[in-house]
Amino acid sequence: MVESVLKGIRVLDFSRIFAGPAATQVLGDLGAEIIKIEEPGRGDDARTFGVTETAMEEFGASPSFLALNRNKRSMVLDLKIPSARAVAADMAARCDVLVHNFRPGGMAKFGLDYETLAVANPRLVYCEFSAYGTEGPLSHLGANDVALQAHSGLMSITGESDRPAVRSGTAVIDLHASLGLVSAVLAALFHRERTGKGQRVETSLLLSGAHLMNYFYTEYWLDGTVRQRMGTANHLSVPNQAFPARDGSVIIIAPADDMWRRCAHALAPEKLDRPAFKTAFDRRQHRDELIAALTDVTRTMSCKELVDRLGAVKVNVSKVNDVGEAADDAQLAAIGGVVEQRMGERTLKSVQMPFAMSATPAVADLPPPRHGEHTDEILSEFGYDAAAIEALRAEEALGRA
Amino acid sequence: MVESVLKGIRVLDFSRIFAGPAATQVLGDLGAEIIKIEEPGRGDDARTFGVTETAMEEFGASPSFLALNRNKRSMVLDLKIPSARAVAADMAARCDVLVHNFRPGGMAKFGLDYETLAVANPRLVYCEFSAYGTEGPLSHLGANDVALQAHSGLMSITGESDRPAVRSGTAVIDLHASLGLVSAVLAALFHRERTGKGQRVETSLLLSGAHLMNYFYTEYWLDGTVRQRMGTANHLSVPNQAFPARDGSVIIIAPADDMWRRCAHALAPEKLDRPAFKTAFDRRQHRDELIAALTDVTRTMSCKELVDRLGAVKVNVSKVNDVGEAADDAQLAAIGGVVEQRMGERTLKSVQMPFAMSATPAVADLPPPRHGEHTDEILSEFGYDAAAIEALRAEEALGRA
Repeated sequence: MVESVLKGIRVLDFSRIFAGPAATQVLGDLGAEIIKIEEPGRGDDARTFGVTETAMEEFGASPSFLALNRNKRSMVLDLKIPSARAVAADMAARCDVLVHNFRPGGMAKFGLDYETLAVANPRLVYCEFSAYGTEGPLSHLGANDVALQAHSGLMSITGESDRPAVRSGTAVIDLHASLGLVSAVLAALFHRERTGKGQRVETSLLLSGAHLMNYFYTEYWLDGTVRQRMGTANHLSVPNQAFPARDGSVIIIAPADDMWRRCAHALAPEKLDRPAFKTAFDRRQHRDELIAALTDVTRTMSCKELVDRLGAVKVNVSKVNDVGEAADDAQLAAIGGVVEQRMGERTLKSVQMPFAMSATPAVADLPPPRHGEHTDEILSEFGYDAAAIEALRAEEALGRA
Repeated sequence: MVESVLKGIRVLDFSRIFAGPAATQVLGDLGAEIIKIEEPGRGDDARTFGVTETAMEEFGASPSFLALNRNKRSMVLDLKIPSARAVAADMAARCDVLVHNFRPGGMAKFGLDYETLAVANPRLVYCEFSAYGTEGPLSHLGANDVALQAHSGLMSITGESDRPAVRSGTAVIDLHASLGLVSAVLAALFHRERTGKGQRVETSLLLSGAHLMNYFYTEYWLDGTVRQRMGTANHLSVPNQAFPARDGSVIIIAPADDMWRRCAHALAPEKLDRPAFKTAFDRRQHRDELIAALTDVTRTMSCKELVDRLGAVKVNVSKVNDVGEAADDAQLAAIGGVVEQRMGERTLKSVQMPFAMSATPAVADLPPPRHGEHTDEILSEFGYDAAAIEALRAEEALGRA
């Protein structure tokens, strides 16, 4: 039998909402055991974020919670109660990884900061996630994905040139940060495997946003260039944007001269293969003229015809899909990108971790947990007997009855 | 002295343009030795992508190349020449990781596919990156970041509701994929440390895009909801979008009822603290009215005033920065997010890897290399003597003189 990469690695996960849960889901896909610690009451706020009736009735949680919490068990601890904090510290002493996204200083108030926990467990990989980092003038501020889309400059370069800036439609900063967390944890586990030593690792929405913007920042630092938004186009080459079709729109990208010639000949050489468009430099110089000429051609064809004709001659082309078309596209399922799990009577579909490993495939053992579903089971595995669990419950350390 | 996490790990990097180079830069930041193999002639196409005069004159490469290629050495090999392919295979036998983004089947033509190389080096971690994956109906197609923004549905939810879809301004799919690659390589190295065995790992623009869209896909799969673009706003809560200030605009997010009350009281309670806006449900029901009322207030204030007032009461707020304001913001430098390296007379600034490790800090030993700068040095380290190098050069395996 194939062993998972992270078989035997235990993760104590205090993280909530998006970036942290997305990260620990990947660790779970890799075979780690994820113990999701939730507050009493509502638990992870993502459970009700944008919740729909169908999702609540049939799965008991919002789509975003269901998308990011497979392969985890849920346990309730009320960290305001001293005995709950003692349980958390005791569990951290026997886990390999701890993840949290409390504001800087929040875990120290509970006695669950790295310095304290590392005394009992020097092998612990302690992973912190915050908005702006744990030091510096803005470290005390909270923020979320869209705030960092604004702060990072991403919003300023997203939108039409003569219209206000818009957000990137999905939580790109949060989800990119989740893979920063995964990378940090895996790097620290590799280091621990070679040295025996744990450490503290961290990332932030700020670092995630800066990494997504890195080539714009470097360009600005070089010569002061401040790029602006250009709709679907960019400054690198022409054509490189969306064009209207009869029944939707398609992206056409042909930066190299030979690719542009193939594009012109596959669609309408008499209209497009002009000397004015010959080189990349020519095409940038005659941007408006080329876009108008190509638009005249594309608007007479269907999306399918454009994709077929241009795909066949290796011009980069794609239909502008809506969310449903994208989710149901056969290619995603064909490469194993869709995870299906039974939840009661229904099948839950979610997106696979964003990479594949030939010798150690991803696992999908557990569907997203109900709030506190595994509290007793987990306590029992950590050696708490029925009387001890009862005592914790009496103190409301596990939430109110 | 602190040892880097990936000290002693040798990476043979055939990747070009964005996702692969961004990934191997992170591995280099973690202390791996990155050997960047480039074609003769222009080398990595990113060297000239959107190149500016300043960048070319002073650093010899484009901002995007400079942003993504520190901590690497460059070596030229012309894989069309048999002796160059033999050198590549020989080096792969003595490296720990190989990364490439040739189209599916491309490396097999050179005899550099995983199955071939693993015979001599079963410990090799072989990492492939493609547009749509290596199997399935679309696997033969090329694509780039913006094509997958379209294909994934991200573009359809980015933009104003009554205007055409736009792209996310930066290469989010490429850069997110880069951390998928980093995670895959680190997971495989961890597995190898425990088992002695290498493996093939892969990711794609398709998996990266699907991961960024995961909660939209899950929602669609649950009940058929197809979300649409909403400018800077989203469907989850109100207010949660950009508002105009006297001198720019700011993002204000106050999803929770108490946070909204703090927001109203910090700005203009007489205008904003209305019964119609009391609960999250009320605010969604009176979306247009609330946005109009809040806009009336914000447009009379400066960005700084809005950020100061709302930040002080822990409402999520951020100025919509342009690229320059974002790059120069003091917080990024304060958390170590900016790397400075000497290149001749100039200092190159680039963005740090997107996470930090307390015991094993990132290294920044080498600035981005000139094309083929280290060809002889690397060959010599791999045991090729001057006569062997001369013979390779005579065959044009190292490019033309």
